[in-house]
Amino acid sequence: VLRGDRAHQIATVLRLRPGEVITLVRDGDEASVRLDAVSPAEARGRVVGRARSRNEPVHALTLALPLLKGDHGEQIIEAVTQLGVTRIVPFASARAVVRTVSASKRDRWQRIAREAAETARRGRVPTIGALTEWDGLFDVLGDRVLVAWEAEAAVSLGQALVRDDVAIVVGPEGGLTEDEIAYARRRGAVTVSLGPRNLRSETAAIAAVAQVTAAFDAVAPRVR
Amino acid sequence: VLRGDRAHQIATVLRLRPGEVITLVRDGDEASVRLDAVSPAEARGRVVGRARSRNEPVHALTLALPLLKGDHGEQIIEAVTQLGVTRIVPFASARAVVRTVSASKRDRWQRIAREAAETARRGRVPTIGALTEWDGLFDVLGDRVLVAWEAEAAVSLGQALVRDDVAIVVGPEGGLTEDEIAYARRRGAVTVSLGPRNLRSETAAIAAVAQVTAAFDAVAPRVR
Repeated sequence: VLRGDRAHQIATVLRLRPGEVITLVRDGDEASVRLDAVSPAEARGRVVGRARSRNEPVHALTLALPLLKGDHGEQIIEAVTQLGVTRIVPFASARAVVRTVSASKRDRWQRIAREAAETARRGRVPTIGALTEWDGLFDVLGDRVLVAWEAEAAVSLGQALVRDDVAIVVGPEGGLTEDEIAYARRRGAVTVSLGPRNLRSETAAIAAVAQVTAAFDAVAPRVR
Repeated sequence: VLRGDRAHQIATVLRLRPGEVITLVRDGDEASVRLDAVSPAEARGRVVGRARSRNEPVHALTLALPLLKGDHGEQIIEAVTQLGVTRIVPFASARAVVRTVSASKRDRWQRIAREAAETARRGRVPTIGALTEWDGLFDVLGDRVLVAWEAEAAVSLGQALVRDDVAIVVGPEGGLTEDEIAYARRRGAVTVSLGPRNLRSETAAIAAVAQVTAAFDAVAPRVR
């Protein structure tokens, strides 16, 4: 039984009818569900098949997402979810223009991530972590953290990437400060270049995730 | 002497003043210009330095861009210009929802490309080609054409890429038809996968260009 947004999406947006089969995803599993009854308030159905999703990257990828003006955050969440990100951790840094996330914005992010995971036919919806300050970020990102930094000239993302779980940090519109970079390095993070051209935050986030998931996919070729 | 949009941008948007130095780019060259006089109608200055831009990819990259609904085309042009694309060729294919480009939309695309090239500190503004039908596309894309296709499972973009000029084709919202793929192959194009997850056109375009320019940058590491 699905209610709320998802019933609305099935009944009103997708206009599905009883008898049609939909795919629901959770924790890397896919369930095929034949719909029995559909209304904008509630959709009922029964599971007719289950499978482990084969569309998940072989390693976990966390994106540390700076708070951005306008709806750039939403564009990034949609794109990186399609590309295969595992977790998104929003953060506020020294030069960030936006410093808080409303409950309604967080709900919208969650909905965008769920819908993008379904569009992408992924078996897992990325989690969206709590808003974090710069120093707290390195408590939650894990052991292998790459920080995209425009002043890094020697090491590219591709060179720093290894075949393991990883977190990528992208800076906000005003960039990261030297102090923030120094702190990240003390916490074991490695700064990487996304190339010699200056990228806006949203382009940097999508480009970085695209490079990492392409590299992960290449590790484990699969026949579909 | 700069007039029109560019004078407006200098005087009103960026609020630059006489004495400030700006960088203008053309055909892979950068000119540093000290402003002498600034008004919303006209900005005057003189060249105080010239250099070959070192921020251009080593090979030319063309993106064949499907016409998309809303402002997705503009988002793509902004992002792929920052990432380093050389030429953008809009096309209308069998399943395209949008089939024409107004003169004002084309002007907006040109302006977005120019501004994104300046943001990225690129030495070259990508050209935007004439709107083309599917068959005409293969007359203008050059010898090495890769078509991103969701039904391609064997060959990834990374595997098909060689260190040479290349054109990437991404499908419209409804996908490419089997007939279109067959025609592309007869014209020598190679179909490639962008991974097992289903991507929207705008994510596919940005992800593909990010992968190609990262590969080109890796060919020619440079110290800045």
